[in-house]
Amino acid sequence: MPEDDARPSGAKTWEVVVGWVEERILDGRLVRGSMLPAERELATQLGVSRAAVREGVRTLQASGVLCPNVGAGATGGTMVAGEPHVALTRMLRMHVALANFPARDVTQVRVVLERLSTSLACAHADDGARARMREALNAMDDDELTREEFNRFDTRFHVAIARAAGNRLATDLTVAIRESMRQPIMRGFDEVADWHLLRSQLRSQHHAIMSAIDARSAAEAADLVEHHIWSAYEAMPRLH
Amino acid sequence: MPEDDARPSGAKTWEVVVGWVEERILDGRLVRGSMLPAERELATQLGVSRAAVREGVRTLQASGVLCPNVGAGATGGTMVAGEPHVALTRMLRMHVALANFPARDVTQVRVVLERLSTSLACAHADDGARARMREALNAMDDDELTREEFNRFDTRFHVAIARAAGNRLATDLTVAIRESMRQPIMRGFDEVADWHLLRSQLRSQHHAIMSAIDARSAAEAADLVEHHIWSAYEAMPRLH
Repeated sequence: MPEDDARPSGAKTWEVVVGWVEERILDGRLVRGSMLPAERELATQLGVSRAAVREGVRTLQASGVLCPNVGAGATGGTMVAGEPHVALTRMLRMHVALANFPARDVTQVRVVLERLSTSLACAHADDGARARMREALNAMDDDELTREEFNRFDTRFHVAIARAAGNRLATDLTVAIRESMRQPIMRGFDEVADWHLLRSQLRSQHHAIMSAIDARSAAEAADLVEHHIWSAYEAMPRLH
Repeated sequence: MPEDDARPSGAKTWEVVVGWVEERILDGRLVRGSMLPAERELATQLGVSRAAVREGVRTLQASGVLCPNVGAGATGGTMVAGEPHVALTRMLRMHVALANFPARDVTQVRVVLERLSTSLACAHADDGARARMREALNAMDDDELTREEFNRFDTRFHVAIARAAGNRLATDLTVAIRESMRQPIMRGFDEVADWHLLRSQLRSQHHAIMSAIDARSAAEAADLVEHHIWSAYEAMPRLH
């Protein structure tokens, strides 16, 4: 029976399962912590194969909507608080790589999201969050870093700011978009003519952003992050 | 063999498939229009069951990354331009419903995205786009509409603006977030004490936004849309 789904006619049956779950989430019959019926039961109820149920469930796991309940079988799943950002990041990263979203468009969206999360971080960042930002910042001052290592700490700095925003959707979207730009930025770094110049610009811009966050100057921090993102974009011709 | 995946030990094998595709998209070996290897071949190559391959592929279809190539079997898939917003919308809608993202957080993000897409629409909206906005706007002036119908045209007005932005990522995110708020806003409408007052406020705010777009006054349109979104939010206590 699972093999039914290999046939084109079965190509949509997993969507029945996704639709069934979605409908119940939207009308509140399934909430965080709810258990799905067993795989066999759900298959009977929806008139689809168990393979279709499994595929629908896996799809929703990949979206961070369901999580597997270990030991309870494949569909004894729990509705989750989940980690939507994992699925979001993966999805955006692939779509950016497929150039469904040109780098200029992504950068424009990145600017408004990082303006928001940086402003919010000025109000919400606690000592621990500020320590994480400063740690990434200080790591970037090491002249021995490869461009790849530098890029990793650069991402970490921006992600630490986003995580301090206190708005989970802003954080998740900011992180997903920053992560989706990691490889294009890395390739951009590799092709920059004057790497030392770019590196020192990025460092001083980061330090200025950090100072504004420490001073809780939300408007200034937002303007600095916007200028920083656009100037890095302009410095990397391959992104254009 | 497909049944292997029902066992907890097999719970991660579909992720191998997703990871394999993702890696090749990120390094450029798979581009838009590329075909995946046949299901059987991919299963052998990755050392997983055909069911795992199928589940991985379905997951990527649900993310809008792959699309089925009808007639070529379950995994004879094509890499796509895709419709990332369909997957994004569905995902965000469920996470908003699960309250993984509180309405206040969503509204805050919605404001910065709609500011951006409205500003861009001032520059990029052509006659057709403006006609679609005006059509939704005029429909909302009908006093006979139910609250649900009013909400539908309200969504359509905001979506028409977002689609005119000329930045696909901004459009997709704005539409996904606006759509994810459709049901909460609908429930909010149902509980508003003075519906006629709210309706007339929303109408006049929409008309003002339309005028600013017609005048290509980007800064004014962005401010108007921000004020509009927050005032609607404040008027619906159940969102708070």
